[in-house]
Amino acid sequence: MTNKSFKLPDISDIKLAQECIAPSIHRTPVMTSTALNNITGSNLFFKCENFQKTGSFKIRGATNAIAQLSEQQLQKGVATHSSGNHGAALAKGAAQRQIKAYIIMPSNAPEVKKKAVRGYGAEIIECEPTLKAREETLKKIVEDTGATFIHPYNHPHIIAGQATACIELLEDIDNCDYVMPPVGGGGLLSGTALAAHFLFPHVQVLAAEPSGADDAYRSFKLGKLIPSTHPKTIADGLLTSLGEINFAIISQHVKDILTVDDDMIRKAMRLLWERMKIVVEPSGAVPLAAVLSNQERFANKNVGLIISGGNIDFNCEILNKLTGG
Amino acid sequence: MTNKSFKLPDISDIKLAQECIAPSIHRTPVMTSTALNNITGSNLFFKCENFQKTGSFKIRGATNAIAQLSEQQLQKGVATHSSGNHGAALAKGAAQRQIKAYIIMPSNAPEVKKKAVRGYGAEIIECEPTLKAREETLKKIVEDTGATFIHPYNHPHIIAGQATACIELLEDIDNCDYVMPPVGGGGLLSGTALAAHFLFPHVQVLAAEPSGADDAYRSFKLGKLIPSTHPKTIADGLLTSLGEINFAIISQHVKDILTVDDDMIRKAMRLLWERMKIVVEPSGAVPLAAVLSNQERFANKNVGLIISGGNIDFNCEILNKLTGG
Repeated sequence: MTNKSFKLPDISDIKLAQECIAPSIHRTPVMTSTALNNITGSNLFFKCENFQKTGSFKIRGATNAIAQLSEQQLQKGVATHSSGNHGAALAKGAAQRQIKAYIIMPSNAPEVKKKAVRGYGAEIIECEPTLKAREETLKKIVEDTGATFIHPYNHPHIIAGQATACIELLEDIDNCDYVMPPVGGGGLLSGTALAAHFLFPHVQVLAAEPSGADDAYRSFKLGKLIPSTHPKTIADGLLTSLGEINFAIISQHVKDILTVDDDMIRKAMRLLWERMKIVVEPSGAVPLAAVLSNQERFANKNVGLIISGGNIDFNCEILNKLTGG
Repeated sequence: MTNKSFKLPDISDIKLAQECIAPSIHRTPVMTSTALNNITGSNLFFKCENFQKTGSFKIRGATNAIAQLSEQQLQKGVATHSSGNHGAALAKGAAQRQIKAYIIMPSNAPEVKKKAVRGYGAEIIECEPTLKAREETLKKIVEDTGATFIHPYNHPHIIAGQATACIELLEDIDNCDYVMPPVGGGGLLSGTALAAHFLFPHVQVLAAEPSGADDAYRSFKLGKLIPSTHPKTIADGLLTSLGEINFAIISQHVKDILTVDDDMIRKAMRLLWERMKIVVEPSGAVPLAAVLSNQERFANKNVGLIISGGNIDFNCEILNKLTGG
């Protein structure tokens, strides 16, 4: 189930995505903070996708991928494997179009995540918490139902959808020097890179990645896709390995990838909560962590950071550590 | 040190406040949430003063009170007793005008609060944590320095300043039925009541108060000011007793006061964090708690709620309870 035959999204795909998803998503605000500008010595602009529907940018790609399906495909629904934001986004996107969604989730996924997906009316199919079980279960569901598999990031319509966050952000900033999303599978980063390349070519695209899950950094430096092995970070949205299509775009249009450790991610997350009064998940705090770790590089620059999401399990250990420290 | 000689603010005082403070404050966003509308069955509009400078609406009143001082008064600075949001707001307001601020704080105030006030360049004067010590220390400071005492709420310029939050909110909502701030000392509520009375007379003003600190509710029902005795609530910004000027305005222009228990405040706070992804202090969640407790009353109504602030001590017990529950 690879996507090798897909062509890379071009400017018309991105414009089409923008048009298709506009009625179904929020144009999220771009926030600034004098306190954080003073702390970092830069001018930071935060694109608040934590305020997006379903609590993350993932609804952009999911909505676009569904919008590009044929009538026949729509009738059979969509399927994916995800215990995270993409699963909830695809479930919500499917509900908006009143089509079926099959979400494969590991049996040990937190009840709160299952509840969110079920709340959107999707069907959850549980499997053993292994990569093999996940892929086999997906394959079976697709065969049995005829549903279209929507990959979380290695998919041109997903990438074109995620590109729209960057367009909105850069429309809202004058003289932006850098734009920096976090990178996990690379859907948001590759979309951002294409949006900047086609529409804002003066803006340099950087990415921020946890050092405990730095396959994008290593792939980028080596010029060759290296899968993630045993990633470990509090930024649970960024554990996945970079996709092939994503890597092809990133190698070409991204200037640099910066890695940050979990302590800095925790510090950035706490600053966003305490100073900006917004709830951000660890993955969403990774770009600010990269600014905090590289203050000279960003001094006096106008920097657009994408807060990718705000979905936090209020019983989870990360939060207790954050509030206890 | 009562304020009996003051006249109640009129429409020109409020318009003047609006003009004076506009350059120094944020026009905070009004946010909505489909999830919370579905949960409550009402159309809720949240005026996000947690995003305000210093993290609460208090900067509005403090900035206005300073703006109305004479040159001679400005030279001698301002003083107040507050370990909370008013202290930080007056310190910040004074810093913006480059005048001195003396903030009397109990010796047991949390270090994080002292740090905020000190960060704005104000002078902290510590006293024993009793009402008597606080008032005597304030009296002495005012005598020694000639600074002007700015009461946290029982003061017409403070009230006129706080009124501006309601004006902005009601400018942003079509066909608003109710506006509801929380009530502690009554600065925000009396300002809201005057703003609605003068400029949006079709809107009914309600207030939300913790049942563990319900002196405003009891005073309102009895038609006579009853001081708070041994208040106890997690909404630590609402422990103070209603002021005289505030009560005079509230008796005349407020339709009703609704009380809510701490469990409901905690539930409301968690909904705001989890569903709206915004950091709200317990006091700021009290109006939503009142909607949750009175769903029939608000069914299908357009309701403007003022999120009064977002200052949370990330080490505090309230937060641990919230995240643990």
